[in-house]
Amino acid sequence: MIKVITDGVGPFGIEPDMKKAKAALASLKDGSCKGNDFLGWLKLPEYIGSEEYARVKACGKKIYDNADALVVIGIGGSYLGARAALEFICSQRFNETGRKGPKVYFLGNGINAADTLQVLELVKGKSLYVNVISKSGTTLEPAVSFRIFKKYLEDTYGKEEASKRIVATTDARKGALKGLADAEGYECFVVPDNVGGRYSVLTAVGLLPLAAAGIDTDAILKGAKEAEKYCLAEREDNPALLYAAYRQAVYENGKKVEVLSVPSESVRFFAEWWKQLYGESDGKDGKGIFPASCVYTADLHSMGQYIQEGERILFETGLSFENISSKLVVPTSEDNADGLNYLAGKDFSEIYNAARDGVKKAHIDGGVPCLEIRAEKQDEVSLGELIFFFETACGISAIMSGVNPFNQPGVEAYKSNMFALLGRK
Amino acid sequence: MIKVITDGVGPFGIEPDMKKAKAALASLKDGSCKGNDFLGWLKLPEYIGSEEYARVKACGKKIYDNADALVVIGIGGSYLGARAALEFICSQRFNETGRKGPKVYFLGNGINAADTLQVLELVKGKSLYVNVISKSGTTLEPAVSFRIFKKYLEDTYGKEEASKRIVATTDARKGALKGLADAEGYECFVVPDNVGGRYSVLTAVGLLPLAAAGIDTDAILKGAKEAEKYCLAEREDNPALLYAAYRQAVYENGKKVEVLSVPSESVRFFAEWWKQLYGESDGKDGKGIFPASCVYTADLHSMGQYIQEGERILFETGLSFENISSKLVVPTSEDNADGLNYLAGKDFSEIYNAARDGVKKAHIDGGVPCLEIRAEKQDEVSLGELIFFFETACGISAIMSGVNPFNQPGVEAYKSNMFALLGRK
Repeated sequence: MIKVITDGVGPFGIEPDMKKAKAALASLKDGSCKGNDFLGWLKLPEYIGSEEYARVKACGKKIYDNADALVVIGIGGSYLGARAALEFICSQRFNETGRKGPKVYFLGNGINAADTLQVLELVKGKSLYVNVISKSGTTLEPAVSFRIFKKYLEDTYGKEEASKRIVATTDARKGALKGLADAEGYECFVVPDNVGGRYSVLTAVGLLPLAAAGIDTDAILKGAKEAEKYCLAEREDNPALLYAAYRQAVYENGKKVEVLSVPSESVRFFAEWWKQLYGESDGKDGKGIFPASCVYTADLHSMGQYIQEGERILFETGLSFENISSKLVVPTSEDNADGLNYLAGKDFSEIYNAARDGVKKAHIDGGVPCLEIRAEKQDEVSLGELIFFFETACGISAIMSGVNPFNQPGVEAYKSNMFALLGRK
Repeated sequence: MIKVITDGVGPFGIEPDMKKAKAALASLKDGSCKGNDFLGWLKLPEYIGSEEYARVKACGKKIYDNADALVVIGIGGSYLGARAALEFICSQRFNETGRKGPKVYFLGNGINAADTLQVLELVKGKSLYVNVISKSGTTLEPAVSFRIFKKYLEDTYGKEEASKRIVATTDARKGALKGLADAEGYECFVVPDNVGGRYSVLTAVGLLPLAAAGIDTDAILKGAKEAEKYCLAEREDNPALLYAAYRQAVYENGKKVEVLSVPSESVRFFAEWWKQLYGESDGKDGKGIFPASCVYTADLHSMGQYIQEGERILFETGLSFENISSKLVVPTSEDNADGLNYLAGKDFSEIYNAARDGVKKAHIDGGVPCLEIRAEKQDEVSLGELIFFFETACGISAIMSGVNPFNQPGVEAYKSNMFALLGRK
């Protein structure tokens, strides 16, 4: 079970409004909240029993067995969840280790020639599959990227074989990509109408690339199912209620920036996924907590100074794991030149925990309210729990703040300027 | 030459105090500013002519020629500069491409067993060199990591050969690592006394790993030398003066968070280097701009909503390149399913620039002052220019804010707690 530890807020005399948090949760559950046409994510733990999920696993296995390389084309919510999960489970070096299954390249998340050409070079001569993920099929970055890889596949394998190597995750019925996929005979998976991009990792959007990479997606969904039990319940230790209520309370006390600290580089992109989830849900109508992240202990040696002594506009949420599965102890040194023999034989996890607890105390002393989130292990089950937990808490938090947690009206502003500059008729 | 474009601040009626900026620059140059025992970085463009730099290149070439793998052990300023530069030049996939020279693994920047064990597995059976970077040799994370890799090298190659495969970048005369290096006969390079960690990338700290990876370090230093000319000059278009003066002006107008947006994933770690430089220099005495970063266009689909419509505590600094060397155009599509044929034949850089300009206009309309920094190309020379430019502007900016740009008194707070928890006598 995900735990939220709140004793680092008490010293600031800040009290959460648990009643308001419970009302927000109730409005999520009974569908009376703002944006209630986007509550499909609440049911996603059930996806495990669906016919489509069986197809996700079969298609994933086909790619796992047959591909040397998988290019995943998507942006925003069609990108961050799968990458976050892949790094969470396989580390940031997911393409460098001896992991079985295809190398995975995320593209269509920018407009960068060098990046695209580099991947084209890397997949040359390899058995390549492409998963293009776009609700509409007209979002600029993935659409341009897909044009390039569609052409590459057709030039390399011929049109018929190419159409077997392209999998589209898109609208169930309409849109440019759905039309093309039907015409060309691509296997299709659905971006549901009632699940926003940033809440879509537990659909085919996130699960197909993960299955293709050999990740145990069943375990992720089981974790989400587990979290559903305690995140939707009106109990005192419901971590989603606690996290939402406390973050809103510190925000109302002038802490406008939340730093999510994560315990290793492999969790960096999970924090990026969290940034989209919270930033896009909270950040509207001139309000919302600005989401930032740090990777510890590395960033204690870069951002640590600011957090300790800069503008007091911050609060911190520390994510860590109760049980670290990899064991490694500090070796004894004959010379003891570094003076660290008093640590000899200590496990890395013990040292990390001392750093974590020392940081928390220091930051509280420095005027930074600290929340802690503890998951059990850095594995698939905990990942599923964390995803459902953060999604639920995000909904509660945004409802408490009075905004619609599920829209993103501000995202269009730059696009219309850009399209005007590009001369779209 | 680096250019700073300030027309995105004017609409907010914010005026920079150029006189104060010039006085701050003068105090940097004449050594009358706070922290003036740490001004050695101002002379680092001259490092190219030094005897030590010739040794850096020779040692780098030896590693480049003989190593399959290089483990670089360091944290904070002994880590971020080299990684930022390597990704800037070779992309974030620096170990996945067919690049000649050793794979490079950055360790000692955390306390994570899985990460350490993964690298131990990856280097097994490979010709391994280690560059350990620590002024004192007693900083916990790199010291623990070095214990492990020293033991691995000695177990694998024997003590004598191991000592030829370890290179120490450390204090010139004193400290635990220097003592050990002298006793064991490691080749040594210097972390100068008058250069702080976050300003040290243009010493052996950053340049040795880069030379070993096959990067043209001469070109980086030449870029820095070029930037020295215009960043230390009292001219109206001095970009360091402009950037420092404008960021302080928007800060004084209540914009407490700066979002540095960078144009691709390969520049993500350059932004991490920037975060340390600015966060650690500015963030003290209860003041300073909180440094955050985004990777565009990806993060327009995650953080874009917040930037457009969230709390109006932000300003944005957009980094981009004038000339994109990789060329790629949007292919024509027969079906035109995505409706993007009006972009067919357009170069990626043209589309990126339209996105960049569209974003700037949208964010200004949304109440976010926007600065732009333009470098010529994403190459070694521009990297050197950017490094010296950002360092100089950082010094000016912190002096304008009234803080010592070169100390980091808050970094010790968590360490003493941690060591107490670990039972250090």
